[in-house]
Amino acid sequence: MKEIDLRSDTVTQPTKGMLDAMFSAKVGDDVFGEDETVNALQEKLANLFGMEAGLFCPSGTMTNQIAIKCFTNPMDEVICDQTAHVYRYEGGGIAFNSLASVRLLNGYRGKITAEMVEPEINADNIHYPSSTLVVLENTINKGGGACVTLKEIEPIANLCKSKNLSLHLDGARIFNALTTTGDSAKDYGKYFDGISVCLSKGLGTPVGSVLLGNKAMIKKAARIRKILGGGMRQAGFLAAAGIYALDNHIDRLKIDHLHANKLAEWLLQTNYVKSVMPPESNIVLFDVDDKLAAEDVVKLFAKAGLKCNTTGPKTIRFVTHLDISSSDIDKCENIITKLNAWN
Amino acid sequence: MKEIDLRSDTVTQPTKGMLDAMFSAKVGDDVFGEDETVNALQEKLANLFGMEAGLFCPSGTMTNQIAIKCFTNPMDEVICDQTAHVYRYEGGGIAFNSLASVRLLNGYRGKITAEMVEPEINADNIHYPSSTLVVLENTINKGGGACVTLKEIEPIANLCKSKNLSLHLDGARIFNALTTTGDSAKDYGKYFDGISVCLSKGLGTPVGSVLLGNKAMIKKAARIRKILGGGMRQAGFLAAAGIYALDNHIDRLKIDHLHANKLAEWLLQTNYVKSVMPPESNIVLFDVDDKLAAEDVVKLFAKAGLKCNTTGPKTIRFVTHLDISSSDIDKCENIITKLNAWN
Amino acid sequence: MKEIDLRSDTVTQPTKGMLDAMFSAKVGDDVFGEDETVNALQEKLANLFGMEAGLFCPSGTMTNQIAIKCFTNPMDEVICDQTAHVYRYEGGGIAFNSLASVRLLNGYRGKITAEMVEPEINADNIHYPSSTLVVLENTINKGGGACVTLKEIEPIANLCKSKNLSLHLDGARIFNALTTTGDSAKDYGKYFDGISVCLSKGLGTPVGSVLLGNKAMIKKAARIRKILGGGMRQAGFLAAAGIYALDNHIDRLKIDHLHANKLAEWLLQTNYVKSVMPPESNIVLFDVDDKLAAEDVVKLFAKAGLKCNTTGPKTIRFVTHLDISSSDIDKCENIITKLNAWN
Amino acid sequence: MKEIDLRSDTVTQPTKGMLDAMFSAKVGDDVFGEDETVNALQEKLANLFGMEAGLFCPSGTMTNQIAIKCFTNPMDEVICDQTAHVYRYEGGGIAFNSLASVRLLNGYRGKITAEMVEPEINADNIHYPSSTLVVLENTINKGGGACVTLKEIEPIANLCKSKNLSLHLDGARIFNALTTTGDSAKDYGKYFDGISVCLSKGLGTPVGSVLLGNKAMIKKAARIRKILGGGMRQAGFLAAAGIYALDNHIDRLKIDHLHANKLAEWLLQTNYVKSVMPPESNIVLFDVDDKLAAEDVVKLFAKAGLKCNTTGPKTIRFVTHLDISSSDIDKCENIITKLNAWN
Repeated sequence: MKEIDLRSDTVTQPTKGMLDAMFSAKVGDDVFGEDETVNALQEKLANLFGMEAGLFCPSGTMTNQIAIKCFTNPMDEVICDQTAHVYRYEGGGIAFNSLASVRLLNGYRGKITAEMVEPEINADNIHYPSSTLVVLENTINKGGGACVTLKEIEPIANLCKSKNLSLHLDGARIFNALTTTGDSAKDYGKYFDGISVCLSKGLGTPVGSVLLGNKAMIKKAARIRKILGGGMRQAGFLAAAGIYALDNHIDRLKIDHLHANKLAEWLLQTNYVKSVMPPESNIVLFDVDDKLAAEDVVKLFAKAGLKCNTTGPKTIRFVTHLDISSSDIDKCENIITKLNAWN
Repeated sequence: MKEIDLRSDTVTQPTKGMLDAMFSAKVGDDVFGEDETVNALQEKLANLFGMEAGLFCPSGTMTNQIAIKCFTNPMDEVICDQTAHVYRYEGGGIAFNSLASVRLLNGYRGKITAEMVEPEINADNIHYPSSTLVVLENTINKGGGACVTLKEIEPIANLCKSKNLSLHLDGARIFNALTTTGDSAKDYGKYFDGISVCLSKGLGTPVGSVLLGNKAMIKKAARIRKILGGGMRQAGFLAAAGIYALDNHIDRLKIDHLHANKLAEWLLQTNYVKSVMPPESNIVLFDVDDKLAAEDVVKLFAKAGLKCNTTGPKTIRFVTHLDISSSDIDKCENIITKLNAWN
Repeated sequence: MKEIDLRSDTVTQPTKGMLDAMFSAKVGDDVFGEDETVNALQEKLANLFGMEAGLFCPSGTMTNQIAIKCFTNPMDEVICDQTAHVYRYEGGGIAFNSLASVRLLNGYRGKITAEMVEPEINADNIHYPSSTLVVLENTINKGGGACVTLKEIEPIANLCKSKNLSLHLDGARIFNALTTTGDSAKDYGKYFDGISVCLSKGLGTPVGSVLLGNKAMIKKAARIRKILGGGMRQAGFLAAAGIYALDNHIDRLKIDHLHANKLAEWLLQTNYVKSVMPPESNIVLFDVDDKLAAEDVVKLFAKAGLKCNTTGPKTIRFVTHLDISSSDIDKCENIITKLNAWN
Repeated sequence: MKEIDLRSDTVTQPTKGMLDAMFSAKVGDDVFGEDETVNALQEKLANLFGMEAGLFCPSGTMTNQIAIKCFTNPMDEVICDQTAHVYRYEGGGIAFNSLASVRLLNGYRGKITAEMVEPEINADNIHYPSSTLVVLENTINKGGGACVTLKEIEPIANLCKSKNLSLHLDGARIFNALTTTGDSAKDYGKYFDGISVCLSKGLGTPVGSVLLGNKAMIKKAARIRKILGGGMRQAGFLAAAGIYALDNHIDRLKIDHLHANKLAEWLLQTNYVKSVMPPESNIVLFDVDDKLAAEDVVKLFAKAGLKCNTTGPKTIRFVTHLDISSSDIDKCENIITKLNAWN
């Protein structure tokens, strides 16, 4: 029996069409700036988001870490939610790569507001690091795929401009967010100084993320990518998958969202689930009953053919993606419904 | 009129006795380890706290930062309260000097417990920094001088030992804490891997702090002190003040505590103070009435001859110390009582 | 007319056979360790070099930088030749990623000896960084592709062992070195603590380098790769090219070396070349006549259809590789011979 | 018998006059900028050297390291002589504190020229760190106290200005240099962006060094001093010694230079000394005969009552200073002349 893998949308395999696009890509040495497919992807994404330039990198962690390095100096401080991926899941890279401190907010499902940010901007005082960067995430991984609208972002962007802070977006799943909010990608460029767009999550490519910014920032980013070891040679094979995904895999994200909603409904009807964070995109976060441990429930799911991960002692995460078909979702209903977690 | 300076216990001037001790000190080149007064101070404090060795440094920030560097590597994570001096008031040094991340707890008046620490120790996973150090503070500056007992510390120390984390104490005002708790300094060595003891706060010396640890740690610390530029030459003049203070200024700390209690009582009886954190040592933190701004009240105090600082938009701090006499405190009663903050 | 590109062996395009291997590869999420093609490549290379484990990374700069980070702590010092790629061409990464100093030797064509290394190992003294790592390069890029034999390496390896230093090999072109020296890859594991093997240079793959070491080192390396942003998802497409290259592109390196020798001979017979460093592998470094500037000669070559780079004001580099055929080399003879650099 | 200590001019003890000045100094909390004696010293030195502002620090290592941090960002490169104190004797601080690389020159007695610097300024290329700072030293410790004139410095300063690099002076013994060259301190401000002036070497104070620069640079420096832990409280006791030394100890440096010259002459007449670097200030560097080891000769000197250090396997350093009287020098003649190093 084929397992259903809901651990992450990073596990997807390229489709036949994507493989064909990769296989036939024109490539060159991207360290010399000569890979035309990489260049095309960078330009396409920059245009899409209303930004000046882009830089293809091996991972979303690298695009985020480079952005943070671009927008801070050692002794600076980054303001973000305490659940932010850049703080929680990038190995401590803010301190390691940028020697910058963090000021952590307690947003609702990871959503922070200008009112929360403003009092945390440090005064000019040698005892404090300099507050120079705010990082947002959209969708919010630890917020159960919560989506933030541009209208919500606007006051934060205005605050950053008025206080001379930069604003970066960790857009690991930005296309999921756009699918839900209906915002235009093009408008994002008006609010953010840097944007990470990940291609290997919901979009389903094998490898890569693109950092967007203005030309000066991207020039600096290329230098940082080199020193981190992220400069690749004939990277066009990977970039071709990105172009294909932008053309073919965005419209279908609403299916993943529909699937996530169905999973949430079924989970709510079981007796081993205590609560489900209402899904806003392709992530379902739910807590198991007080008497249970999340890791035990994960094992039972695994036995039934459904792979998933815990994200806390009581919390489990399902992520839907393009390798999860409607019939897979039907099988999930069966597994979720029949599972007796008190076995 | 002489101003009464309650801004900090760092503003004290050496007494005549201390000055005599300083300028009759035998000194040598401490970078070569040849300053006998420095060596005597280091040994005296190490013995007092039941530790193997000590290192004299220009400031408490340096002893803390060196300790953090000794006990972490880049990519590690430090666990402490979100109000901790090492995180809040040392310029972002944890990231800058040690490239280490922070995991911040929300203790009551800055006091954290083993139960709070344990779930925040990261699993061995490449997405997370390695949790390797817990830092405590005693007394707790932002906790209104709250004092922690060894009995409260013991479970944290046990947890650290069992999980292979180091435990460091920011003892900027450790003698104030000992005065209140009645704990024995000697017993501290059983719980901590590193201790910073500040001489220029409650003890009243002009300059300096001593880092305590085992011999291997202090050897490493000396290397870090050198690279940070903290190696001094004839530092014995400063160390002599420390020895004098240890012999003469510890018993009198109870007077500062008594003074702090009096200030708190008088503040509670005014109509411009909303609440006072019950003082446990020489610090009084209080919030002004909702209609007022702390900085305005500070200005009124200044006009009346009492210098103090805000520590938040609504919060003011008084610190008592050896340059504040009983008659100064009497004058404070008058100022506090007569102040009409609605002027 | 198709240009002949002798700028670098990084510009190669995958062959049809390599492309077939890439796009039929079985892939998985390598961040979860589930990409079987990546795993196979890592194991294959580790076995080949007599090492315990391997880690696939986006570039040779990343494998080198990770190795340096694994083998040093901040305040340590790396000993290498002053022309070493890790020092000269990795953006200053030794200081940036590892906070380590450098002690630079003046080897002949980049070759250093145990006699040169030994006096540069610092004594245990707080004024000096701790010498903890020696880095060798084979072949030596700035040494005109000079090759080092294991017999030459042995005394350095013995010195490192006796003095407790680690020894890392930047093997960007290690297979070219093995082709020339006849040494066995397997024996390398006896001498080195870490080895970088680049796949995208002489071996002709699009992207990637593998770091080899013992299991503990590779575990640490995986953590560093993550924090630098080098963790990729379905990286098997790239790794498959590496496996193909190991099976198919090593034997042919001797052709590149033959081509390099021919180029050198022709260059020596012109009147615009002052001297040629005798080629030992696929790199030809030569100095132009005193009356000329290297960049002007490069422009003349370009006009004649031959692309190459300067590596100094008087120095030009040719690199042969698998996209340079015998008929290309014949054309080069014509270009080199006919060029009149005084035009 | 009192030993004659020629190990370093850092070993001096304050004179009676200096102690009196220290003892009667007016002090305040320098972290709050309220120590009037510190402020006076900073201003006095800034005026003396034609700079805008100064910052008192615990050591010359700290003033140098702060300057390097002020003038570089991570990924930058510092150009200096390969013997420079900032590179050789500050624990690897350039990499540790500033994450900057080094480009090392081979000057004559540590003296570098604009012609040597210019080709080492890196082009704007992601493979190279950015060259942003040149550091000079005057006098040059490892150059046997060699002195550099402003006329020699001018072309380097002009090059830095034209290429947009900063220029810092490690003036650990700048007053010795001024004594020899006759240059005016005031003119130094025209050439340098930063100057470290050490008070605890030739000037004979117990502790301290002052960093000079423009106001913006010194503001940044104060922030860095804080994060390194170099902020001291009642530092005026130390600063008072500096003011006294500037008023009383500069004119007498010529005596130290005369003493150094005498020592050199006597050494040249022995049969155990191979060569003496002609002294230009208060340092005498000499090599022992080929048959001897420097450390053995140091032991023989010690036995005869003269303390000194090796600076290499064949090299010994004498440093004259204010605790070395004319009668001490006479005794040295006796010791040097009578020593039979073949004993």
